[in-house]
Amino acid sequence: MMSDDDCKTWCQLRQNAVVQPLLTDLYQITMAYAYWKSGKTNDYAVFDLFFRKNPFQGEFTIFAGLEECIKFLEKFQYSNSDIKYIKSTMPASVDPAFFDYLKNINLNDVTIYAMQEGSVTFPRIPLLRVEGPLIIVQLLETTLLTLVNYASLMATNAARYRLVAGKNITLLEFGLRRAQGPDGGLSASKYSYVGGFDGTSNVLAGKLFNIPVSGTHAHSYITSFISIDDLQAKTLAHKQTGEVFDLLELASKYRDAIAEDIGGIVSEASDGELAALISYAIAFPERFTALVDTYDVKRSGILNFCAVALALNDLDYKAIGIRLDSGDLAYLSNATRDIFEKLAVKYNIPWFAQLTIVASNDINEETIISLNEQSHKIDCFGIGTHLVTCQRQPALGCVYKMVEINDQPRIKLSQEVGKINIPGKKNAYRLYGADGYALIDILQRSTEEAPQIKQKVLCRHPFQESKRAYVIPTHVEPLHKVYWKNGKLCEPLPTLIQIRDRVQESLKTLRNDHKRNLNPTPYKVAVSDNLYSFIHNLWLQNAPIGELS
Amino acid sequence: MMSDDDCKTWCQLRQNAVVQPLLTDLYQITMAYAYWKSGKTNDYAVFDLFFRKNPFQGEFTIFAGLEECIKFLEKFQYSNSDIKYIKSTMPASVDPAFFDYLKNINLNDVTIYAMQEGSVTFPRIPLLRVEGPLIIVQLLETTLLTLVNYASLMATNAARYRLVAGKNITLLEFGLRRAQGPDGGLSASKYSYVGGFDGTSNVLAGKLFNIPVSGTHAHSYITSFISIDDLQAKTLAHKQTGEVFDLLELASKYRDAIAEDIGGIVSEASDGELAALISYAIAFPERFTALVDTYDVKRSGILNFCAVALALNDLDYKAIGIRLDSGDLAYLSNATRDIFEKLAVKYNIPWFAQLTIVASNDINEETIISLNEQSHKIDCFGIGTHLVTCQRQPALGCVYKMVEINDQPRIKLSQEVGKINIPGKKNAYRLYGADGYALIDILQRSTEEAPQIKQKVLCRHPFQESKRAYVIPTHVEPLHKVYWKNGKLCEPLPTLIQIRDRVQESLKTLRNDHKRNLNPTPYKVAVSDNLYSFIHNLWLQNAPIGELS
Repeated sequence: MMSDDDCKTWCQLRQNAVVQPLLTDLYQITMAYAYWKSGKTNDYAVFDLFFRKNPFQGEFTIFAGLEECIKFLEKFQYSNSDIKYIKSTMPASVDPAFFDYLKNINLNDVTIYAMQEGSVTFPRIPLLRVEGPLIIVQLLETTLLTLVNYASLMATNAARYRLVAGKNITLLEFGLRRAQGPDGGLSASKYSYVGGFDGTSNVLAGKLFNIPVSGTHAHSYITSFISIDDLQAKTLAHKQTGEVFDLLELASKYRDAIAEDIGGIVSEASDGELAALISYAIAFPERFTALVDTYDVKRSGILNFCAVALALNDLDYKAIGIRLDSGDLAYLSNATRDIFEKLAVKYNIPWFAQLTIVASNDINEETIISLNEQSHKIDCFGIGTHLVTCQRQPALGCVYKMVEINDQPRIKLSQEVGKINIPGKKNAYRLYGADGYALIDILQRSTEEAPQIKQKVLCRHPFQESKRAYVIPTHVEPLHKVYWKNGKLCEPLPTLIQIRDRVQESLKTLRNDHKRNLNPTPYKVAVSDNLYSFIHNLWLQNAPIGELS
Repeated sequence: MMSDDDCKTWCQLRQNAVVQPLLTDLYQITMAYAYWKSGKTNDYAVFDLFFRKNPFQGEFTIFAGLEECIKFLEKFQYSNSDIKYIKSTMPASVDPAFFDYLKNINLNDVTIYAMQEGSVTFPRIPLLRVEGPLIIVQLLETTLLTLVNYASLMATNAARYRLVAGKNITLLEFGLRRAQGPDGGLSASKYSYVGGFDGTSNVLAGKLFNIPVSGTHAHSYITSFISIDDLQAKTLAHKQTGEVFDLLELASKYRDAIAEDIGGIVSEASDGELAALISYAIAFPERFTALVDTYDVKRSGILNFCAVALALNDLDYKAIGIRLDSGDLAYLSNATRDIFEKLAVKYNIPWFAQLTIVASNDINEETIISLNEQSHKIDCFGIGTHLVTCQRQPALGCVYKMVEINDQPRIKLSQEVGKINIPGKKNAYRLYGADGYALIDILQRSTEEAPQIKQKVLCRHPFQESKRAYVIPTHVEPLHKVYWKNGKLCEPLPTLIQIRDRVQESLKTLRNDHKRNLNPTPYKVAVSDNLYSFIHNLWLQNAPIGELS
């Protein structure tokens, strides 16, 4: 455990190191100068940060990254060295007074509305609404996008794994070695945990974020023992009595005794593997987990594991279980469970039937679904590459669009209707039915009154005139709160555990058909009648009348 | 530009912050304890870090990340706070002397062989060979993999874009907002540059790595100007004479004069866009580039851009060009080039025909190939999501396998032949033909003599007996050098630019059929006859004889 002070120091270092105002696209700074030069320092703009499509062919997204955005805002300031560097990228003709302006920028006049971190969210609902001086809110764009995009993608991916795995399976993130850079690995561990994983193999993530860490040994541990002769220490003391036993002798005895029960042949089992497992059991008698597929799961690994686990049992230690890292996981887990159950009966040690089976071979969402269909006896999945790189869709397409400037709404037209953004300052509400499930999200102009419970609310599709429905909500949840005002945080930030809990609570309010893996039902995001007219009037005003010729 | 000292300080901060011994999987530490506990502190092991398959369905990979590995090694030390944290993750029964051992670990006895950073490489050729005390080299595994995997994947991806784009196209990396975390974005910028990109939009990457940065404005800049009235400053001084002109008046005059030539109608062009472009030209008269697709490329954007560029020309400023961010890029670039050429003739300003056309709409390798087939007039691609997240394959599967322990070779068998690792300490050579192209890479036992030029070398497929060939090399390149020995770097590290140059030189030695996008010819990686026998003898010794029943 790290002290609060240690953590603070580290975070500051990290903050200074990477997440800082220069972590942005150059065009934000060239735009800032052009705005400044053309006298737009007092222009006031409103930007929405949102996405247009849920990731992974799903119908929901988890919003994450807010805390990191706030930390970025709290430290937003160009250093002298930043200014010097920015100068070097700009033409000599740039007015030097601009650099003084940049140096003195602060976020006192910026107001940020956000959804609660960990909430389920949907396309077009702003995750953040950022208001303030045009130049300044424009300068925040890239960094906010960077901090929200991957965090939300990762939390969503993890939440999807949790949904397909079910509540009773332990999910561990094992992806550091394949992550997109060292910090990609840290973010992956953090947001996997937020999305519903139980722990990570990443020690630094464990230390920094107080996430449970987990791990045993690799194949190299097993192969580093060539034969029984490599076993230097062979004894272990009884947990209660302290009496010292020869674990090799005990395990060898059990190996002979159970080989036939479990369909193995002692001469075919690897002695190097047995030596490795005994040495590991001596080091961690209370946490004995064994990787069993180094040579042959059935002929060697399981036999050796059970022999050592039974030996440990004689010394009053309960083994934890095994890890399978290759092969047919459904078949092997069932076969292994049968063996555990058989030995539990044979030796009258009931807990032996419940030994943990961990699987960790290139697992993805589809693997878990397929294993569920075949039926398996796995208790825990260790998931790496597919989880942390979000292989199925490695980027969430969050965008940051101007919706209002100097109280005038802005609409960005596009050939694709789905790419038209919804103009003006808006509030969003989630309407719930009597059964507690979310029915629909509705965007309204910020000047409209909130929908009322037990009153009819006309919900309209933002672009299709004929798609309308009346909804009578039992509960109305405003989706945004002010998190940043007058240069500081103004809403307490939840802890990581609270965000993690929020994800599960928020997902519970979503009907299962929206959450299923195959062809989920889209959840509806509507606009109020008032906002509908507002959008379409603006659209007509701005769209040129074509000519057919 | 950052001073060397600034840079050093920053790197140290960054180093301390993320890349540190705790950035690892917990099982490395639990294994370390089990090794220590079983008296294996003097065991000496050799690990190969390699991958089994080239990414992106290609037939080559660029090795990158070595410098970051070295920086990690140089600072390898567990802090007191690390030890405290590690203790908290371990059972109370762990011998406290182990923590003293951990605290005092240093890398004086570790030797690391590596390929030159920026080299083309192939499956099974070790990128790193790490030798030293078993416990210590095992503790390095995860971090080394993390530092090599994404760096190499990213550099390879960038190199592939360069290959399809050709030498004369400018390639810019625009992916920060979609990268996998803030540091993912920084690594992407760095290794895109290494792989052959010309610059990045990422300002921090520019500052830290001295990479050219690039950027102009976003759609929001254009939409923030609603009409001509938003234009507060309208004048600009002539570059030579200093005489002040009304740029709006000039541009409006040109807009009227050219509308017909380029098939536009002035009343349909956006005045807000014109205002935005004039303001931008006033801020950056020597770097005028315009995003032209906010409203309508042909009816509005190009007309407004040309009007402003011609006005600037009257003041002796040469505009840079335009950026297209949507639509049919082949068609629009050709149409735009035609307009530029027409106006170059009309106004007798030849450089106008060569204005730069940048395209930046969701570009990937296939888009570029397809644009090349259609023929286009784009000079520069700005590439984001697909590049930085390596969407087509977001992880390289580097592994770190024990190949020898205490002078005994280790082989890890697998049902899949491709997953069997090549045992023992090996050297690798690249054999070149008389035309300068690389013919084959060969792995030999480290005790064998290097292949000689002009002498027959028997090259064998590592697993298929009948696949053999004699090669008579004109040039033999040893692929590994010792980079780390006696606790320090022992080979000078190249600069980023040198690594970038190395990528292009190294790619030049590879025949085009290995590099092409569609069905490239596999480049062969062979083993010497001696190594072949060595592998297969070991294999037979270790593989159990099955029984059919």
